[in-house]
Amino acid sequence: ARATFLETIATQIEALGDELIERAVAETGLPRPRIQGERGRTCGQLRTFARTVRAGEWLDVRVDSAQPERQPLPRGDLRQRHIALGPVAVFGASNFPLAFSVAGGDTASALAAGCPVIVKAHGAHPGTSELVGRAVALAVKACGLPDGVFSLLYDSGYALGVALVSDPRIKAVGFTGSRRGGIALTQAAQARPEPIPVYAEMSSINPVYLFPAALEARAEALAQGFMTSLTQGAGQFCTNPGLVIAIQGRGLDRFISAAREQLPHCAAQTMLTPGIFSAYAAGISALSEHAHLAAKGLAADGPNQGQAHLFVTQASAFLGNEQLQAEVFGAASLIVQCADADEVRQVSEHLEGQLTATLHLDADDVASARALLPVLERQAGRLLVNGWPTGVEVCDAMVHGGPYPATSDSRSTSVGTAAIQRFLRPVCYQDFPDALLPEALQHGNPLLLRRLLDGQREA
Amino acid sequence: ARATFLETIATQIEALGDELIERAVAETGLPRPRIQGERGRTCGQLRTFARTVRAGEWLDVRVDSAQPERQPLPRGDLRQRHIALGPVAVFGASNFPLAFSVAGGDTASALAAGCPVIVKAHGAHPGTSELVGRAVALAVKACGLPDGVFSLLYDSGYALGVALVSDPRIKAVGFTGSRRGGIALTQAAQARPEPIPVYAEMSSINPVYLFPAALEARAEALAQGFMTSLTQGAGQFCTNPGLVIAIQGRGLDRFISAAREQLPHCAAQTMLTPGIFSAYAAGISALSEHAHLAAKGLAADGPNQGQAHLFVTQASAFLGNEQLQAEVFGAASLIVQCADADEVRQVSEHLEGQLTATLHLDADDVASARALLPVLERQAGRLLVNGWPTGVEVCDAMVHGGPYPATSDSRSTSVGTAAIQRFLRPVCYQDFPDALLPEALQHGNPLLLRRLLDGQREA
Repeated sequence: ARATFLETIATQIEALGDELIERAVAETGLPRPRIQGERGRTCGQLRTFARTVRAGEWLDVRVDSAQPERQPLPRGDLRQRHIALGPVAVFGASNFPLAFSVAGGDTASALAAGCPVIVKAHGAHPGTSELVGRAVALAVKACGLPDGVFSLLYDSGYALGVALVSDPRIKAVGFTGSRRGGIALTQAAQARPEPIPVYAEMSSINPVYLFPAALEARAEALAQGFMTSLTQGAGQFCTNPGLVIAIQGRGLDRFISAAREQLPHCAAQTMLTPGIFSAYAAGISALSEHAHLAAKGLAADGPNQGQAHLFVTQASAFLGNEQLQAEVFGAASLIVQCADADEVRQVSEHLEGQLTATLHLDADDVASARALLPVLERQAGRLLVNGWPTGVEVCDAMVHGGPYPATSDSRSTSVGTAAIQRFLRPVCYQDFPDALLPEALQHGNPLLLRRLLDGQREA
Repeated sequence: ARATFLETIATQIEALGDELIERAVAETGLPRPRIQGERGRTCGQLRTFARTVRAGEWLDVRVDSAQPERQPLPRGDLRQRHIALGPVAVFGASNFPLAFSVAGGDTASALAAGCPVIVKAHGAHPGTSELVGRAVALAVKACGLPDGVFSLLYDSGYALGVALVSDPRIKAVGFTGSRRGGIALTQAAQARPEPIPVYAEMSSINPVYLFPAALEARAEALAQGFMTSLTQGAGQFCTNPGLVIAIQGRGLDRFISAAREQLPHCAAQTMLTPGIFSAYAAGISALSEHAHLAAKGLAADGPNQGQAHLFVTQASAFLGNEQLQAEVFGAASLIVQCADADEVRQVSEHLEGQLTATLHLDADDVASARALLPVLERQAGRLLVNGWPTGVEVCDAMVHGGPYPATSDSRSTSVGTAAIQRFLRPVCYQDFPDALLPEALQHGNPLLLRRLLDGQREA
């Protein structure tokens, strides 16, 4: 039933048709193909979670059979499954009006886990939120579920959000946004008589490591890929490449030259909200004070347009100034020039937790990359080779999360099917008669789950 | 190698022989068979975690193969595994000098996950801690591991503990003890620039529900079982039955009568520490003020001996006084008499989070128990039928944990193999060449893991 509900939400969102696309484009300034793609991802992830719910592995069923003859004490019959944590508060993201908003990833994973969801719509796209909220409400009705399964709230300030997180009936929180917002919600959740988990995806500058052989072989192509990733969506992705780390030399010089040639041709883009635009301007101003401006994109020709910026600094300066690793939400990036591999390592160890770390390498770089890998694994939730961090796949293996402050809880992901585990907890049933056991744990295994039975996984 | 290390610790603890048993008996006042049993559990759980490490399911390997032809965008090759969170601080428990101390459950699960461990020994059994600490150190040396894999600290106050939890190099905390201690550590962990997870097992009164048909059939036998569970180990178990809930009537009257006959024959027992004894005395005094004393055990004939106490109250009084559900660590329990099933449900919904909830029922009680089950599932980590909560099994299905304040983090267990998951986080590897991939994720699957491959679990 829960899987069907998720699929029905997807169907209802698709049934909104062009009205939804037009509204979202109007409210966000994002291009139409981007919104269409996001609708596809949104409906796709709802259906993916439906498959995950049906597969049943999230129940993590474990059975330890009774050993009545065991000495010195008999062992009872012990069975474990996972159940929903309870009602979840979800805060929509400004930069994903569909995929991380009303019926986005957090909502889908919480509903998949069996949690009722209360969404606080993001003020940047109220009409889009309302349309999607109505689609979910229709799905609730079509599936004969109680109204309380899903609620949608509107508010522009912090007050409602904090009240929501502080309500004793809420048992977990999903949030995507600024570090300030995430920390405020986490603190409110911790100040409750009963603290609750908060999954806040807050800030990340997504370091990109350019290794010498790769730079030598294709500095210009790397610069081209970097520009595309940097400026995509006006740079308003949590996985935007805000930091480039490389050993100085001819290869890096060529990369910087190519970037300096290309960036001035990149058009300024309308940013999502006036608030994001002014925060971006403030970030650029701070970077300008502490690093060397290498290049910038075309100037704005309209309100709230973000102009791309690229800065360069030395490792020693970077290591000495925490402000240089502050997230600037938009198309800004900083190249850190290192003297040698040891300095690359120092810079890497100096970084805060990140959502992603990217390595560009050729065969001759593999040994140096391997040496750096343990540092990167401690630093980020997703590591990429010869790609760009923007563009997150909804699948089983994805990790969109990472050590603090990338997220408030590194033990999970907010994208991909593993996200269902954020809203579950285990319960053990000891010596229950079959008639009282939930179906997933009954002796006959009616759901045909692959249980962990007496230490062995069933085939 | 990690599995061998865990097994070597077990071997080294066994090699301590009688010296360890005698020291632990002398320091804790616990009877010799109890300490011998606890040594068996301690070594057994180290070996169980070794098997869990070898089985490799904790890696949660997920592979989504590349789809280079996918439209509109190709998909990369994505692989996920779990890695260790980092160094873990473990606080030993007073009531389990072996099984939840230096090489106890928290240490075993953290080492199994690949985390270095720093143990703060409990002041109640310093010699026992030192002996076990030396055994672990010998195992570190025998396995050729770096010294930093394991450390043991001594201190009697809060200061060192808070300093340890506040150290930026510590990435998670395991604690078993008082609610005050657990809350202090949780707050210190949250106040860090980088907050970290704390797994604190704090307080639980473990409600026992006696259903009418079961009471009718065997009130006296239930009273006998209750007495045994209540007074075991001077009542110093986190799973001690501190609350009994039943509908008033002839069956419950018989249960109370039997308890009143039996309890006066129960000997007082030496408690673990003077501090625990005085806290117990204070708890008894508070209960005496607000509930009716039904019976007590034999008086103490030595210092620090805890005398068993049984109280009775009405549901209305219980619902009106939060103090009646405060944990009293020792052989004290409170019977709550309810008018009907509805009042049983009210009492149940009024309870804080618990480690366990126990149901005594016969065939005629199954329907009422089924109706109450959703409340109990929200309330506790382990539900038992026709048993007693004291006695925790180390196995795959065990859940020793529960909603706050039973534990600070209900999403996990501190006993059983699932505890390994408390110290892990996921990392995703995108488009890595095989030479750079960790063994668990390589294309040829050299570890023969049952991966989640393109949505299907391998056989």
